Amino acid sequence: MPIPTWSDCAPLLVDVAMGRKAADSVLRRGKWVNVHSGEIIDGIDVAIVSGRIAYVGADASHTIGEKTEIIDVNGRYMVPGLCDAHMHVESGMVTVTEFCRAVIPHGTTSMFIDPHEIANVLGLEGVRLMHDEAVDMPINVQVQVPSCIPSAPGLENAGAEFGVPEVTEALTWPQSCGLGEMMNFPGVAMNDPKMLGEIGATQKAGKTVGGHFASPDLGLMFHGYVAGGPADDHEGTRKEDAIARVRQGMRSMLRLGSAWYDVAAQIKAITEDGLDPRHFVLCTDDSHSGTLVNDGHMNRVVRHAIAQGLKPITAIQMATINTAEHFGMERDIGSITPGRRADIIITSDLPSLPIELVIAQGKLLAKDGTLVADIPAASYPDFAKNTIKLGKPLQATDFDIKAPEGANEVTARVIGVIENQAPTKALEAALSVKDGLVQMDDEKDVCQIALVERHKATGGVVNGFVSGFGYNKPCAMASTVAHDCHHMIIVGTSKQDMALAANHLANVGGGITIFSEGKELATVELPIAGLMSDERAEIVAEKASNMVKAMQACGCDLNNAYMQHSLLALAVIPEIRISDMGIIDVTRFEKVDLFL
Amino acid sequence: MPIPTWSDCAPLLVDVAMGRKAADSVLRRGKWVNVHSGEIIDGIDVAIVSGRIAYVGADASHTIGEKTEIIDVNGRYMVPGLCDAHMHVESGMVTVTEFCRAVIPHGTTSMFIDPHEIANVLGLEGVRLMHDEAVDMPINVQVQVPSCIPSAPGLENAGAEFGVPEVTEALTWPQSCGLGEMMNFPGVAMNDPKMLGEIGATQKAGKTVGGHFASPDLGLMFHGYVAGGPADDHEGTRKEDAIARVRQGMRSMLRLGSAWYDVAAQIKAITEDGLDPRHFVLCTDDSHSGTLVNDGHMNRVVRHAIAQGLKPITAIQMATINTAEHFGMERDIGSITPGRRADIIITSDLPSLPIELVIAQGKLLAKDGTLVADIPAASYPDFAKNTIKLGKPLQATDFDIKAPEGANEVTARVIGVIENQAPTKALEAALSVKDGLVQMDDEKDVCQIALVERHKATGGVVNGFVSGFGYNKPCAMASTVAHDCHHMIIVGTSKQDMALAANHLANVGGGITIFSEGKELATVELPIAGLMSDERAEIVAEKASNMVKAMQACGCDLNNAYMQHSLLALAVIPEIRISDMGIIDVTRFEKVDLFL
Repeated sequence: MPIPTWSDCAPLLVDVAMGRKAADSVLRRGKWVNVHSGEIIDGIDVAIVSGRIAYVGADASHTIGEKTEIIDVNGRYMVPGLCDAHMHVESGMVTVTEFCRAVIPHGTTSMFIDPHEIANVLGLEGVRLMHDEAVDMPINVQVQVPSCIPSAPGLENAGAEFGVPEVTEALTWPQSCGLGEMMNFPGVAMNDPKMLGEIGATQKAGKTVGGHFASPDLGLMFHGYVAGGPADDHEGTRKEDAIARVRQGMRSMLRLGSAWYDVAAQIKAITEDGLDPRHFVLCTDDSHSGTLVNDGHMNRVVRHAIAQGLKPITAIQMATINTAEHFGMERDIGSITPGRRADIIITSDLPSLPIELVIAQGKLLAKDGTLVADIPAASYPDFAKNTIKLGKPLQATDFDIKAPEGANEVTARVIGVIENQAPTKALEAALSVKDGLVQMDDEKDVCQIALVERHKATGGVVNGFVSGFGYNKPCAMASTVAHDCHHMIIVGTSKQDMALAANHLANVGGGITIFSEGKELATVELPIAGLMSDERAEIVAEKASNMVKAMQACGCDLNNAYMQHSLLALAVIPEIRISDMGIIDVTRFEKVDLFL
Repeated sequence: MPIPTWSDCAPLLVDVAMGRKAADSVLRRGKWVNVHSGEIIDGIDVAIVSGRIAYVGADASHTIGEKTEIIDVNGRYMVPGLCDAHMHVESGMVTVTEFCRAVIPHGTTSMFIDPHEIANVLGLEGVRLMHDEAVDMPINVQVQVPSCIPSAPGLENAGAEFGVPEVTEALTWPQSCGLGEMMNFPGVAMNDPKMLGEIGATQKAGKTVGGHFASPDLGLMFHGYVAGGPADDHEGTRKEDAIARVRQGMRSMLRLGSAWYDVAAQIKAITEDGLDPRHFVLCTDDSHSGTLVNDGHMNRVVRHAIAQGLKPITAIQMATINTAEHFGMERDIGSITPGRRADIIITSDLPSLPIELVIAQGKLLAKDGTLVADIPAASYPDFAKNTIKLGKPLQATDFDIKAPEGANEVTARVIGVIENQAPTKALEAALSVKDGLVQMDDEKDVCQIALVERHKATGGVVNGFVSGFGYNKPCAMASTVAHDCHHMIIVGTSKQDMALAANHLANVGGGITIFSEGKELATVELPIAGLMSDERAEIVAEKASNMVKAMQACGCDLNNAYMQHSLLALAVIPEIRISDMGIIDVTRFEKVDLFL
C-alpha cells in the first residue's frame, strides 16, 4: 500500500521535526551521504514517520518517544535507496513481487519498469496487472507505458497493438511515470504520426519520454530523433554516444545488465572528458534471475561505476537524485531529506558498498543481504496464466518443410546466429530433398526453426532454418519468450522432439524447455503470460542454470545460447528473422521466400 | 501569444532537423555554452522553427531554405537566455510589459514573478491581470501564486485575503508555476492549517512551492519549516544559510537585488566549501527601475557571481538550467537544445557578459542593449486604476493626535527607522502637548506618521510618530506603496502638507509624492493598483530619482529613504510598525497603545 504523500502527512512531519510528536523510528549517528550538496556529513540523525523523513540533523533526541524505534547507525554511511532508471521485470522471468524480493536486499528501493513484454502478450490488461502489482510493493515501482507494441508493425502480429489511445489511458494510472523506450527511432525520425502521437501524449501529461536509439549513427537520424522528444537513452555504447546525448539535452542512461556492459566506455565522458555528471543516470535494463541472485542489482552498477574511477558520491548521485530529477520525482525520492520517502541504505564502506540494512518507506526490509520483511507472493488471474493458445496439439509433420515440386535439392535462406551479438547473418545453404521434404544438415549445422503462433490460436506454424547453435543430437528447444512478439520459437534437429517440446510448453502455460529423443531434459515454467514464473528468483535461476547445462549436453556451446534463441523473432534487428508472417529480411524490412 | 508546445510542433521540429523543411532562422558558427554537459563547444549551428530549437550541431546547412534568416554568430558565445527564479515586478513600479521591455536587452528571457503586492490590493483579480499580461509577453513569464495575503493576518486588513481556494484556483491558470514565497515561516512551523493547505494544494498540482525563511535561526523552526514543504529559499544571507538549505533538499536561491546583496557570502558554499552547485539558483527578488535602467538584471547577477570566483559556466547554469529544473521546465527552457524555446543570448565575452543579441522564442528582441522588437504597452482596466479609496478628502485635522485629557506632556511610542535595515526600533519620546494635541519635536527628529486606509474607503486614519528620516522643514511624503498591505503611509512634519500629499495621491490614482509648504516637490504616479506606473521604466526611474532629490532637499539623507518609508507598515518584521488597526508591536505580534 502506498504511504501518504508529502502533502498528506506534512502536518505530522512538521510536528515530528519540531518535537511535538514522536517519530516512528530514528537513525542515530550516521554519515549522511548528501546527494544535493555532494557532501558526506558525519554525526547525523534521521527521524522517520509515516514512511517519510521528518528531520535530518545533528540531534533527533526531541523526536524520540516511548515507541520510537532507534537504529544505531554507529558511524556507518546512510545512502539514499538506489533507483533503477529503466528495466524490464520480465527479463528476470519472475513477477514484480519476486523481482522486488530479489533486489531489495541489494539496496534497490525504486524501479522504473517498462512491461513491454507482457504488453505484447496481454496488451493493456497485462500492463495493468503489473502496474497494480507495483502499487502494492513496499518499494517504489513506477511503470513506463510500453510504446512500441508490436515492435515491428507490418512484419508481425503480436498479442496486442498499442497506439495513442492505449498510451494515453495508461498514463493516467497512479504509478505511470512516462513512456517506455521509444524503440522505433527510424519512425520518429521519419515523422510517424503514431510514434510522435505517443510522445506528445506523454509530454502533455507532464511525464517522461523514454528513448532507445539503438544505432551508432550520430548524424541526421539522431538529430531527428532528439527533436521528436525522447528525454533519455540507454542504448549508447561509446563515450561519444554518451556525450552526444547529454549535449543534446537528453539523459544519458549508462547500462550494466546481465549481458550489457555499457558503463565503462561511456563513463569516460565524465572521468576523462570532465562532463558535468548531473545528467548521467545508471540503469540495468535487463537482469536475469541468476544475476539478481548471485551478483546484485543497482549496487552492482554503482560499484562498477566507482571501479571505473568515478567518485563514490557521483556514482551514488547517478543512481539516486539524478534519476529522481529525470522523472520529476525529486521531492519524493532520491535523497535523505525531509518530506521524501525514507528509503535508506546503511553501509559501512562506500567503494565496496556492502548493503547492510535496507529501509524503504520507513520500514526495515533487509539486513545483511537477507529479506527480513514479509512480502506476500503475487497472485495473477487465470487469463494471465492461460496464454499459450496453439489451436491444436502439434505433430512432427507440422514441421515438414515441403520442397518445390520435383526438386531434389534446394537453396534455402538460413538464419545465422552470431556468437555474442544480437544481429544475425542472412546465410544460404544447399539442402537435400527426401520424399518431397527439405532435410536438415548436421554437417553444415543447419537445423530447423519454427515460429508457432500462440496468441490467437490460429494454428499457424512458420518453418525455416537456422545455423549456429551446434546441436549434435536429436533434440529440440522451445521457448515462449521470443522478443518482442513472444510467439513460440522452437529450434530442433528432431521434428518429433520439436512437437513434444511445443506441446509441453502449452501444457505448463509457457516457458522454456528442451527435449531430446522423446525425453524432457529441462524446463523453466513461465506460466504468467508465458514470460514469468510465479516462483522465487532463486528457483528460477536454478532452473535456468539447468537449462543451460541441458543445451550444452545437446552440443550447444554458445554463450547466452538461450538469449540468442529468444531473439530470433526480433524483427527489428538485422539481418534475417522469423515472424508469424514468414521469414523477414530485416535489412529491407520485408518478407522473403524461404527458398532462393 | 505563446508559441506552440514541443508536442504541438514536434513533427515540424523533426522535419527541420532532418532537412525536410526549412528553418525560420539559423545561427551559424557559435560557441555553444552547454549547460547540460558543462562544456563550451566551438563551431556550432542552431536551427530554429516556430520559436523552438530544431537542431544543434556542427552544420545546419540542410535546414536552410530560401526564406531562412541567417545570423552569423562568428565565434561568439551562444548562452541560454537568463532566468530570474523569483522576483516581484511591482518592485520596479512598472507593468509586466515595461519590466520585460527593460530586462530583455539585459538577456532575461524567463521570469518567475510573484505578484503579491497587487494581490494585497486587488486580490485574485489583480493577480489574474498580471498573469494574463504575462501570457502575452514575448518572453517566458511564469506566475507564482501569492501565498500570504495579508502578510500579517489579525494585525492588518489588506485589500484581499487568500486561502486555499484562491491558491487552488490560481494554480490552474496556464502560466502559474507554483506558490509564491511562503513568508509565514512561524505559521508553517506551528502547523497553521491554511499555510500547510496552500503548500499541499501546490504539491498536489505538481508545482513548485516557493519559500521565504527570513531568519538566521537554523534550529528547530528551520527544520519544521523544511518539513512543511517549501522547495526553495531566497532569504539566506550567510554561507551557512545556503549550505543548510541545500543539504536539506531545498534550492538555495542567491539574491542580488537593488538593495539585496546576498550572493557574495553564500556563494562561498561553492567556491570555498566545494558544494555541488546544481541546487543553487540566482534571482533578483526586487529590482528598482533605476537598477534595471542603469545596471542590468540577471546579467548583473551572473557577472557578480563570476566576480566572486565562480566559473562562468557554473554561474550561467545557476541562471538557466538550475532554474528550469527547479520549476520542472527543463524540457522547455534553460538550455540551447532541441525542443526547447529558442531563448539565446549572443555575447563575445563570458566573464563580462556583454549582451549583444537577445533572441527569445526564436525572435530577435534586442541588439546591443536596445530593444528592436515592438512590444505593445499593456492596458489595465479601470478597476485596477481606481484603487485609492479614501472615503473623503483629508484635512490637516485628520492628523491631530489628541493627548489624554488634561495631560501637558506624554510619553509616546515612536517608530525608529534604522539606516540600511528593514527592522525598526521601538523608541519612546516625551512629547509636549498644546491645545490638547500632542506635538512633533524637530530636535528629537520625531515627526508624524499616518496610515490611511485606502482599499475600502473606511476613512480610517491611524496616527503615530516616527523618528530617523531627518526632515528639517515643513513637508510631507506620502506613498501608496506600503508593504504588504499597501495602504497609504504619510510621514510629515506639517499636517497641512500631509493632507495635501494624501489628496494628491488620491487624485492621481496612487504613487509617491512629496509636498513642502503647500507645494508639490515631486511625484511618481503609480495609477495601477497604486503600485505601478504605466510608463516606461526610464521615465519611472527618472521620477524616482527626482523623488530622492526632493526628500534630500527636505533634510532626509537616509540611503534608500523611500524604501524605509514603504516598509513602515510591514507588520511582520520587528520591532514596531503601523497598520490600519493601530500601532503594532512586532516582537509580541500585538496592537499597543500609542502612549505609554
